[in-house]
Amino acid sequence: MQGYKAPQKDALFVMNELLGFEKHYADLGFEDASPDMVEAIFSEAAKFSENVLAPINAIGDEEGCTWTDSVVTTPTGFKEAYQQYVEGGWPSMTHPAEFGGQELPYSLSSALGEWLSGANHAWAMYPGLSQGCMATLEAHGTPEQKKMFLHKLVAGTWTGTMCLTESHCGSDLGMLKTKAEKNDDGTYSLTGTKIFISAGEHDMSENIVHIVIARLPGAPEGTKGISLFAVPKFNVSADGENEDRNAVTCGSIEHKMGIKGSATCVINFDGAKGYLIGTENRGLNCMFTFMNSARIGTGLEGLASSETAFQGALAYAKDRLQFRSMKGVQNPAGPADPIIVHPDVRRMLLTQKAFAEGSRALAIYAMKLVDITLYSKDEADKQLSEAKLAFLTPIVKAFLTETAQESTSYGMQVYGGHGFIKEWGMEQLARDTRICTMYEGTTGIQAIDLLARKVVGSNGKLLDVFTQEVRDYCLSIRDKGQFNAWSNAIEVHLDEWKQLTVDITKRAANNPDELGAASVDYLMYSGYVTVGYFWLKMAVLAQEKLDAGVDNPEFYQAKLHTAKFYFDRLLTRTRSLVSAIETGSDSLMSMPVDQFDLGA
Amino acid sequence: MQGYKAPQKDALFVMNELLGFEKHYADLGFEDASPDMVEAIFSEAAKFSENVLAPINAIGDEEGCTWTDSVVTTPTGFKEAYQQYVEGGWPSMTHPAEFGGQELPYSLSSALGEWLSGANHAWAMYPGLSQGCMATLEAHGTPEQKKMFLHKLVAGTWTGTMCLTESHCGSDLGMLKTKAEKNDDGTYSLTGTKIFISAGEHDMSENIVHIVIARLPGAPEGTKGISLFAVPKFNVSADGENEDRNAVTCGSIEHKMGIKGSATCVINFDGAKGYLIGTENRGLNCMFTFMNSARIGTGLEGLASSETAFQGALAYAKDRLQFRSMKGVQNPAGPADPIIVHPDVRRMLLTQKAFAEGSRALAIYAMKLVDITLYSKDEADKQLSEAKLAFLTPIVKAFLTETAQESTSYGMQVYGGHGFIKEWGMEQLARDTRICTMYEGTTGIQAIDLLARKVVGSNGKLLDVFTQEVRDYCLSIRDKGQFNAWSNAIEVHLDEWKQLTVDITKRAANNPDELGAASVDYLMYSGYVTVGYFWLKMAVLAQEKLDAGVDNPEFYQAKLHTAKFYFDRLLTRTRSLVSAIETGSDSLMSMPVDQFDLGA
Repeated sequence: MQGYKAPQKDALFVMNELLGFEKHYADLGFEDASPDMVEAIFSEAAKFSENVLAPINAIGDEEGCTWTDSVVTTPTGFKEAYQQYVEGGWPSMTHPAEFGGQELPYSLSSALGEWLSGANHAWAMYPGLSQGCMATLEAHGTPEQKKMFLHKLVAGTWTGTMCLTESHCGSDLGMLKTKAEKNDDGTYSLTGTKIFISAGEHDMSENIVHIVIARLPGAPEGTKGISLFAVPKFNVSADGENEDRNAVTCGSIEHKMGIKGSATCVINFDGAKGYLIGTENRGLNCMFTFMNSARIGTGLEGLASSETAFQGALAYAKDRLQFRSMKGVQNPAGPADPIIVHPDVRRMLLTQKAFAEGSRALAIYAMKLVDITLYSKDEADKQLSEAKLAFLTPIVKAFLTETAQESTSYGMQVYGGHGFIKEWGMEQLARDTRICTMYEGTTGIQAIDLLARKVVGSNGKLLDVFTQEVRDYCLSIRDKGQFNAWSNAIEVHLDEWKQLTVDITKRAANNPDELGAASVDYLMYSGYVTVGYFWLKMAVLAQEKLDAGVDNPEFYQAKLHTAKFYFDRLLTRTRSLVSAIETGSDSLMSMPVDQFDLGA
Repeated sequence: MQGYKAPQKDALFVMNELLGFEKHYADLGFEDASPDMVEAIFSEAAKFSENVLAPINAIGDEEGCTWTDSVVTTPTGFKEAYQQYVEGGWPSMTHPAEFGGQELPYSLSSALGEWLSGANHAWAMYPGLSQGCMATLEAHGTPEQKKMFLHKLVAGTWTGTMCLTESHCGSDLGMLKTKAEKNDDGTYSLTGTKIFISAGEHDMSENIVHIVIARLPGAPEGTKGISLFAVPKFNVSADGENEDRNAVTCGSIEHKMGIKGSATCVINFDGAKGYLIGTENRGLNCMFTFMNSARIGTGLEGLASSETAFQGALAYAKDRLQFRSMKGVQNPAGPADPIIVHPDVRRMLLTQKAFAEGSRALAIYAMKLVDITLYSKDEADKQLSEAKLAFLTPIVKAFLTETAQESTSYGMQVYGGHGFIKEWGMEQLARDTRICTMYEGTTGIQAIDLLARKVVGSNGKLLDVFTQEVRDYCLSIRDKGQFNAWSNAIEVHLDEWKQLTVDITKRAANNPDELGAASVDYLMYSGYVTVGYFWLKMAVLAQEKLDAGVDNPEFYQAKLHTAKFYFDRLLTRTRSLVSAIETGSDSLMSMPVDQFDLGA
């Protein structure tokens, strides 16, 4: 496979030109995060991704992790790459100076999040989980806990995990069984077994801080009886130094379809010492801090896969000679034309490109909202951003990872039979990204979160808040006649989106299964319209740039071409989604369970 | 993963009740193939698939094939299973008595083709390729060649391959370089390297007969200069006994995403002795015999994956407890409800079920057409069947394998994170079936075959021939008011299908890229309508059975429920396909190649 190239120019286009990040950072008081500074950071992040992580991506898949007697060894080069990551200061980028952080805005990590994963999804899991652990401690830890854990986590000397899943409960955390009992010294003893713990055990860091959900004796049943704990692999002194081994061990690692370089661990807690984070029985509320950023982070992984699959497929499509164009010979010097002359190959490439770039705009926009919720002093702006972020988070998570399945599948398909062969790297991409629609809440869970919890749960208010932004934008470009067709298409979708919501809500009043029946199609519909809004914005901006005269007109011309493809070929997918949604729940629910399988 | 169950009842329903196979076989003179006989054969085929092949499916994936010094060793149990397959007489089922065959109708192998692959896709590649080799020799070999090769192939003592692909040519066979030079004794010497040769070398049989395309000195360029040869691994005496080793060796095997138990070989011909099949330079015509049946065979593999993924997902969905139904507690004895109560889980299961059963009806119908083309004495019937088969073959190949990607992806998705873990078997299914949209002609190749070669190439006649059958059927059920909505939906699609074809043809007259631009969406459109026709037929028949009173009403009720799901949720996918097709080629072709990647 050709080398990975971090899409720096496109990320900078989105931040600086499309979303006005210079002003955004200045407004929030991040004077250091000037465009020059951002560009310099991105340039280093790109080098690290391209030169350090990409070369060990196939090795990680080939070797996987090995487990012996509770010790996990990561693939060749993973540990050294992590060392370079720490030496580069990457773990500390967005964390408070108090703990050794660089206090850069959170959104700066969006490019890093995409590129690390785009170059090496499995490797990126290790620092990714640490970020979740730190975010939880920063938001909900006591000063003592922060002092104990955060210095080494921020430095990257230690890493962290999130321990939620148990064998009998994944989505439904209310069923968890891991027990926590209070000790006389105020700590807790945790006992139970967690599964699917990414980075749960490995050889990269000196300690691992597990953020664990567990149940106290006599806690209320279900999600109202969940408490949150920090449980280190090695016990930690008050000033944050390693002490003796805690009763936390890795019982085994999973053999998986992909991200084989990422250790997915069974973690046994055998009376392990833990520290309560937040209030007893209110652990799930604290978890949401982490879960929302993890969900956007997973969306970035999906976007990353679309980009990497696009790069791989494009290189092959330019190089591989097969058949002549139906229009006649395009490459007279060769025995055949490069397959990029064939319309269906272009359809696949443009789908990948439109998903990658449209998703990038949406994801970085979501990260901008996160910034505002974290740092803004303007309460109204903060609340508005929180509302938009709540609405967009399940869309970012599910839509960007679902479209990544299509992008990576096309990555293989463009290669024909060669796509199935390991050495080209395209099949690894498809295997690695397959987890993204399942972990951090499946697509079905995101869809219910969007439709039932966010939209219907707010009486449609969260939908209105976001669509008002889109309406205002469409109104603002009315005078630019050139884009009326696309702008109208978006406005028609806004009305339809609202109507669909009203109809589903009405049906659900009599039959709550109507929500589940509509949910995933509704989420995908929402994704196509939302990304369509960003394509419209990118197209309008690109035309402005071209009209004004720029040094690199091709970049902006490409945006216009890709936007046209999006409106012609991808936004139109809403037609079938609407047809499906309108049929309601009957065809899903009417068949008795014992009639499902009578064919054998 | 739970055990595989061959869908015997459903296959018998399609053959005996839906498609009238008793009369069909009698008409063609196959008196032996009575319903009782068919059922007995199916029962044995089911046992073999379930008890012999399914248990070694995961082993095959885990071990893969190994290559040392041109010798390939298949996974544990593969050789023994093949021995049982031979002892059961399966290789000879549909072949002429003259060579030791049982002379059963070709279509009887459709169930076998599905079930072998559904139980163990990788293993099924070995006998599958043999069938292609035998079909080619039976159709185009000289009496001497038949005598040399067919006895042992039909017995299964030998196996066969098809050697087409070279590293620089896959779809575009006109570029092939392998040379064949005529020897004084009338044989040929073949020199060249073929890649991606399934079952090219292995340890299951005493000899391997390669069917190879090559180019004679001075042959016309392109596909008009391709000749076909039989090239055995061991030279063969005139009466079909092994002699000395021929200059055919396996240079290596590929490391692949899936079907790891299937040896995908690089085969080197170093002046290997070969026998011309058919006429010099007319090899591709002979290949079509094989390619058409191989394409339907690949469609059966796709159908098989949909079925197996459905079975696996259904078992988990009934067993896994997670959340309560939104309608209230359904499983008061348990801590949560089985996930099959959730509408979105049912949406995934019903999609798999509707694809599997609808595809099965279509595939067996195509096999019925093959029977008629092979055995009928009625020339008009034969020609009509040939026309329908030519039209349906690319649809069967591409639609059944594309929908298999969705079915197997849902197989994992229903399992949530567990779907990504090897021990459940769902991820292997997705990896194994991924090749099906790429080998035997990619989806893009099938789509061009359908739209450009078959439909536009016949001035729409092939489309009309098939849609007339559908129209006649819809007309015949007009009096059954109950099904008017679905019947009308199909009829509206028939008109639209025609109109789309007319529109595309018109645009293509000025711009041939319009064909490629529309092709894959057109093929998928054709697939949804064609399978919709079979769902309509199955629903009407199921209602007739229920009205007449049957012992097993649940089987027929399930057909009605699933048909409703198909019309509500799957046929409606044509809406987006039409929208995409109507936009034409402009958004695909307008971007210059050097603008594709400017983001990095």
